[in-house]
Amino acid sequence: MKEVETLWDEVRELSLGSNSRIQRLDSPPTAVEFLREFVSQNKPCIINKANLHWPALSLWTQLSYLSKTLSSSLVSLHLTPNGRADSLVKHPSLDQLCFASAHVQQLPFDQALQLVLSTDSKAVAYLQQQNDCFRSEYSVLGSDCDEHIPWATEALGCYPEAVNLWIGNHLSETSFHKDHYENLYAVVSGQKHFLLLPPTDVHRLYIRHYPAAHYSYSQDMLDCALELEKPAIHVPWCSVNPYPSPETRETEMAKFPLFFNGPKPFECTVNAGEILYLPSMWFHHVRQSPDENGVTVAVNYWYDMQFDIKYAYFNFLQSIHYKSPHDPTLSEIECEDLGYDASVHNLRDEVRVDTLALNAVDAKQDNEDK
Amino acid sequence: MKEVETLWDEVRELSLGSNSRIQRLDSPPTAVEFLREFVSQNKPCIINKANLHWPALSLWTQLSYLSKTLSSSLVSLHLTPNGRADSLVKHPSLDQLCFASAHVQQLPFDQALQLVLSTDSKAVAYLQQQNDCFRSEYSVLGSDCDEHIPWATEALGCYPEAVNLWIGNHLSETSFHKDHYENLYAVVSGQKHFLLLPPTDVHRLYIRHYPAAHYSYSQDMLDCALELEKPAIHVPWCSVNPYPSPETRETEMAKFPLFFNGPKPFECTVNAGEILYLPSMWFHHVRQSPDENGVTVAVNYWYDMQFDIKYAYFNFLQSIHYKSPHDPTLSEIECEDLGYDASVHNLRDEVRVDTLALNAVDAKQDNEDK
Repeated sequence: MKEVETLWDEVRELSLGSNSRIQRLDSPPTAVEFLREFVSQNKPCIINKANLHWPALSLWTQLSYLSKTLSSSLVSLHLTPNGRADSLVKHPSLDQLCFASAHVQQLPFDQALQLVLSTDSKAVAYLQQQNDCFRSEYSVLGSDCDEHIPWATEALGCYPEAVNLWIGNHLSETSFHKDHYENLYAVVSGQKHFLLLPPTDVHRLYIRHYPAAHYSYSQDMLDCALELEKPAIHVPWCSVNPYPSPETRETEMAKFPLFFNGPKPFECTVNAGEILYLPSMWFHHVRQSPDENGVTVAVNYWYDMQFDIKYAYFNFLQSIHYKSPHDPTLSEIECEDLGYDASVHNLRDEVRVDTLALNAVDAKQDNEDK
Repeated sequence: MKEVETLWDEVRELSLGSNSRIQRLDSPPTAVEFLREFVSQNKPCIINKANLHWPALSLWTQLSYLSKTLSSSLVSLHLTPNGRADSLVKHPSLDQLCFASAHVQQLPFDQALQLVLSTDSKAVAYLQQQNDCFRSEYSVLGSDCDEHIPWATEALGCYPEAVNLWIGNHLSETSFHKDHYENLYAVVSGQKHFLLLPPTDVHRLYIRHYPAAHYSYSQDMLDCALELEKPAIHVPWCSVNPYPSPETRETEMAKFPLFFNGPKPFECTVNAGEILYLPSMWFHHVRQSPDENGVTVAVNYWYDMQFDIKYAYFNFLQSIHYKSPHDPTLSEIECEDLGYDASVHNLRDEVRVDTLALNAVDAKQDNEDK
């Protein structure tokens, strides 16, 4: 079905550019420009020097400032054995891939930060919680950043639905996924490295249902188990790891030819003081480089998206069964295929349950027992 | 392929509303509102009292004012035997449907207007030319209207590419088609009655290639011939007439079940003083009711559209071969099917050649001999 491949190319030719680069703006756009050139077109951009005026940019490079200011704060720490929360991993007893969430623990900030900094321990720690944590757990830092992004707020006609803080080290990475939000992602220190794919490339990520599991650490953090959710839950997730290890590279490329042989993802690095506009429904994979203190710090603003014709077109595209003629191994992926009905049903569920009370994973749950 | 039908419903459920009504605004939107709520979402609206301040609204109801002001102007008059230019008609010798364009004649305004008013003659006359005629043939009327629609110009970031004037009687109607422009359609006197279908309904209009022809009147206007273009040209056009005559109704409904059995078109009447925002790529069918002078007068502003992800999605959708299980007669339509390659090729051609020098029909030509 070459129509799908034509779509991948046409989106790039018409509006995104085929050089796989994200457009950079020298100064923040007006609300009208932002809407016309980016939101309406579902097109990402990076705004240089967008948040250089935030006190956070100088204050937060002193970790002692953060420790002092947050000395009485309990924060959510995500722990994984390898830095990969919300990603696919082979379950030891099932001998099958599952979707693994982090072990989440509430800790005093200083203790949590020490764990983020100790990159040689048994657990990789990541300070983050996608539940508006910046305005709850970290509310004492509020005045160090803008409460919202003024031109985005004016354009989108609402204040952010959630503002999240992320403090991690170089080991943490986020696997390919999409969010049902317009996302303004501001880097405060270090660098974030994004791989981006437009929603039109959905088939290239081989979204399939995987059994959900979570890491569970012992009290002393020396032992970690991967526990399947009970009752069983299946989560639709992107199957592709864009950076396979040298040993698995060949197998992965054979399993996911649409990804590895198709157009390159858009690649960009967002530096301290810059904001990435990550449009709703874009697939993104994130890695990071730390600053001289060993951490990458970012604040992202989630604004409600419009569930409009673009969203309806996406659902339609995703509902089309697409199998490339060069894709002989699709059926061999060790997971359940995401059929038409499941997909549409699930997407609608996502919209319904995507509230702040639930984190991104919960929102994508598809309880088989329902 | 029920996915296509799901798409029709989803666009209505998510954003347009399923009551088949077009949203009405009590006052013109700001540029930001217009972009956010309508352009970005590819969603029509009608703005009440949008152009009540135009001098045209009172001046043009006196036809003597128009005749006097335009006394030295040559204007383009479109002549057809039935009021249906750019529509499908059975060719007498071919015994096959063809796409018939009007006979276009340059006449002094007063003489042309008399022909529009004489609805009992052998020809139905329509003063219109979609080549920016308001700013060329009718430039002496320029100060009677706004040169552009300020909030639309600010939102879309450009001035109109073309401004067209339409003066017709109750017999003229425009068959279903779409334009590659954002359209702001202002009614000055009488009423315009629109049927609208979103781009996602493309399959419901059975776009097929038809041999192009044009009406040709004798000098005395008593004889009219329908002449096929030579060399032959085939034009992709919507096959559906939403108002079939009682005699043909049953056949038409059997031929085009996706149209007649699917969701109703959005129906709206635009009154003098009101502006319809008709988003790019929406299919529209137009009829009109005259004022007390016997004419309907309107001015429309075509602004450049963005060829963005929405446009790419549309091309993809159109390229999908869709045949409803309830559609046994599709292959019986007396015309060439619009196959995948032809469609994509043609759409790209449209973009390339869609300049002001060409009218809407020319822009859709697909010369078989190429």
